[in-house]
Amino acid sequence: MRRFATERAKKLISSYYHPHQRSLLSSSRYSSRFFTSVVPDPSAMSPPVTVDTINPKVLKCEYAVRGEIVTQAQNLQQELQAKPGSHPFDEILYCNIGNPQSLGQQPITFFREVLALCDHPSILDRSETQGLFSADSVQRAWQILDLIPGRATGAYSHSQGVKGLRDHIAAGIEARDGFPANPNDIFLTDGASPAVHMMMQLLIRSENDGILCPIPQYPLYSASIALHGGALVPYYLDEAKGWGLEISELQKQLKEAKSKGITVRALVVINPGNPTGQVLAEDNQRAIVEFCKKENLVLLADEVYQENIYVDEKKFHSFKKVSRFMGYGEDDIALVSFQSVSKGYYGECGKRGGYMEVTGFSADVREQIYKVASVNLCSNISGQILASLVMNPPKVGDESYESYIAEKDGILSSLARRAKTLEDAFNSLEGVTCNKAEGAMYLFPRIHLPQKAIEAAKALKKAPDALYASRLLEATGIVVVPGSGFGQVPGTWHFRCTILPQEDKIPAVVSRLTAFHEAFMGEFRD
Amino acid sequence: MRRFATERAKKLISSYYHPHQRSLLSSSRYSSRFFTSVVPDPSAMSPPVTVDTINPKVLKCEYAVRGEIVTQAQNLQQELQAKPGSHPFDEILYCNIGNPQSLGQQPITFFREVLALCDHPSILDRSETQGLFSADSVQRAWQILDLIPGRATGAYSHSQGVKGLRDHIAAGIEARDGFPANPNDIFLTDGASPAVHMMMQLLIRSENDGILCPIPQYPLYSASIALHGGALVPYYLDEAKGWGLEISELQKQLKEAKSKGITVRALVVINPGNPTGQVLAEDNQRAIVEFCKKENLVLLADEVYQENIYVDEKKFHSFKKVSRFMGYGEDDIALVSFQSVSKGYYGECGKRGGYMEVTGFSADVREQIYKVASVNLCSNISGQILASLVMNPPKVGDESYESYIAEKDGILSSLARRAKTLEDAFNSLEGVTCNKAEGAMYLFPRIHLPQKAIEAAKALKKAPDALYASRLLEATGIVVVPGSGFGQVPGTWHFRCTILPQEDKIPAVVSRLTAFHEAFMGEFRD
Repeated sequence: MRRFATERAKKLISSYYHPHQRSLLSSSRYSSRFFTSVVPDPSAMSPPVTVDTINPKVLKCEYAVRGEIVTQAQNLQQELQAKPGSHPFDEILYCNIGNPQSLGQQPITFFREVLALCDHPSILDRSETQGLFSADSVQRAWQILDLIPGRATGAYSHSQGVKGLRDHIAAGIEARDGFPANPNDIFLTDGASPAVHMMMQLLIRSENDGILCPIPQYPLYSASIALHGGALVPYYLDEAKGWGLEISELQKQLKEAKSKGITVRALVVINPGNPTGQVLAEDNQRAIVEFCKKENLVLLADEVYQENIYVDEKKFHSFKKVSRFMGYGEDDIALVSFQSVSKGYYGECGKRGGYMEVTGFSADVREQIYKVASVNLCSNISGQILASLVMNPPKVGDESYESYIAEKDGILSSLARRAKTLEDAFNSLEGVTCNKAEGAMYLFPRIHLPQKAIEAAKALKKAPDALYASRLLEATGIVVVPGSGFGQVPGTWHFRCTILPQEDKIPAVVSRLTAFHEAFMGEFRD
Repeated sequence: MRRFATERAKKLISSYYHPHQRSLLSSSRYSSRFFTSVVPDPSAMSPPVTVDTINPKVLKCEYAVRGEIVTQAQNLQQELQAKPGSHPFDEILYCNIGNPQSLGQQPITFFREVLALCDHPSILDRSETQGLFSADSVQRAWQILDLIPGRATGAYSHSQGVKGLRDHIAAGIEARDGFPANPNDIFLTDGASPAVHMMMQLLIRSENDGILCPIPQYPLYSASIALHGGALVPYYLDEAKGWGLEISELQKQLKEAKSKGITVRALVVINPGNPTGQVLAEDNQRAIVEFCKKENLVLLADEVYQENIYVDEKKFHSFKKVSRFMGYGEDDIALVSFQSVSKGYYGECGKRGGYMEVTGFSADVREQIYKVASVNLCSNISGQILASLVMNPPKVGDESYESYIAEKDGILSSLARRAKTLEDAFNSLEGVTCNKAEGAMYLFPRIHLPQKAIEAAKALKKAPDALYASRLLEATGIVVVPGSGFGQVPGTWHFRCTILPQEDKIPAVVSRLTAFHEAFMGEFRD
């Protein structure tokens, strides 16, 4: 097809320059005017857009997860394809981003069955379909189609998402939390990122509005705050206490921000943590809710890793459940919970499904959020359907239930094993300490770099952890993100590595990492 | 399922308040602290977010297409469901938005086959699949899967979209235009709206940066400019000349904006027009390109209706083709073309697929666009696949070709008939004049309202066309958008009505509209 189009294009191009064939271009009476020659204005100006004339907020925004290191990796990949054997590894292993299916994780069968049937409902009645799809996927597809006005999966939905799908999601939240959820509080979005942007857009009026963010943080937050022109007010997680979140630190940073004239409007909490992998204890969550209540802050709860818990002693509790349990109702606390189909055991990043549950905002503010959602019309319907499925998966007695549970448990238990193996491997390296990944998809080891390495990085105008990550990539093909992309206590160096390589590849990852690290330390040891 | 979840939720809730069952909540050692009573701070503050403390740009933004009239329609719909027969119509006909499948348009079979197969690739090898799907859809699904690294349709793609799909799209653009297209110029997005936002975000630094927009315009542009804090610089389309775009008007408005200290950065052109339905003539397009070149403006070309042309005497020409044909290459003009899977004959609004083709920007500016795209990771993969399909549909010899062409032609010829019937109907109404819909999906009739109606609206603090639309809705169930939502010459009144009701409903639409209009004029005649 490509060849076909290119040839057709070539023919068309040549025809343009041969007036006798000009009917190919157009039947318009104006087409002959196309053949007068055009001489561009000789007083050439500078281009209409340069980096000096674009929005400086765009320039300021940084997003390390897809930054320089990924460009370097893509270049290496091209070199490998063009010249196999040109590097000491045969594939690039993208551990920079929580993208499970890119590393071989298989989708949950039931979810994909339902999505396929909703994409092409005309096969639902066909006898062949019975042999190809599970009975409950067919039933669920019918049920979902009946929730969509006119069964039109190709139509824009309500700006917040299909009402019936929001009902399913609200029921799932109720089942999870044990407290009521209102479908009208749910805004379905193309992944969690647009939801975060929407809240930043609402809250940030100027550079004097601040958002309390953990450091280290997922750089979506710093990027979104920069794009909307606000101030990131950092609070440091305590690495020595397993990336603990200390209320005293929140208080200190809030006070400092206020003294600089910053109005702090919201607190971002990522639980389970990204890039840090800790799972908050309930009393800690209660104290956080209390802090937001007392300081009159919106609590922005990034809960996209709610299904990713790997240790028995920790459970996920949503901030909504915790605050309701404390006796705070709808009118007492402004709380936004973000969820995504990209994470969990499903890992459906490419589907761009997600939602935010918005509680504790007045009706007129809600109207404004609705308006902003409306400008983009709606999120994609497949992502909406998938969000309803992950919040309401097959249940006992459904045909798919057993295979669904087997797939889910297989993925989660494997992730737990991978997290432990990689954690142990990092901790066995010279000068490296690594907290446990209690949840999420990442480890964030600290590297105590030799002074010589720090100076070598300085000479290259690189952050020392960026030098480490770059050298790791060159030596092993493993892509990790330098800690400087997430923020860290000044003078400490880290990197984020996902736990997502498939289990049969983990031993090779460990041995390549170990060999690289020894060589690196050997080269730079003080 | 809803019932199941609700019951489970009720059980959980009651359990929280019975300490003997508290293990249900959590095994954590902290859980007992949940049972101490929490008394909210008595010194209640005002909520952390009110309409007085949100970002004023959000307040300023308006989006009429899903505004007040739609809320009114949704309320009526609920009343109809609760109490059938409570209104003089039995359904709400949403003619407010270009959402073809919501009004019964069927999706193109081939496109949906491919999407379903890509959602659930494990059926591709099954024998039953041969009976259910066309051979070329199976072949295309394999081809597409091979373009996606690891065949992982559930993985985040490259921030601009899957490279192989961009190759297909570039080939489609080449075939359409007869000039080369570079896949690296293409940014796949969740519909065209996020692409428009991205460009506004890049271009607008402050309220002193202006964007030339047609009036009437699709309110995405005014909304996006407001959200990004820029100035909308209006240029009026000439209704008397079939909504003609006059260069002298552009020059006049540019000069006036400059005199107010506005730096005009870009010109938005919607071709075919929305809400106005005109298709630009080639010499007009040439003059527009020349104007942008001379005034050093970025040309933002909304070309989402490129397949929707209903008159023989007009053809669609992309601005890229026109500018290349004029001899302007990559370095001569900064041009962004927006395309969407929501429009055309496909009308796949719910899939949120689309792209922008960005040409004539320097590498460092392109890097900034890439960075902003990266913050949202990528657009949804189904939408990406669909964008590749609409730009490279089945071709002669493919099994699906004939049915595809029949479906496509059926939709487009029906739309042309509907456009004509509705245009004639509007023109037959007292005091109404309506330009032809040469393309797109809308008519934008002008209503010469009696003074009494204008005064009645004033008394209700409504725009007169909003009063008209509201009364039309109450009387007929037909939802149209008041012209004031798109902008219009002061003192003139219009509304936008889609041409999308299914053909068998058009006679009823016409007779209901006509009866309403007569009654309305009867009531208010001066």
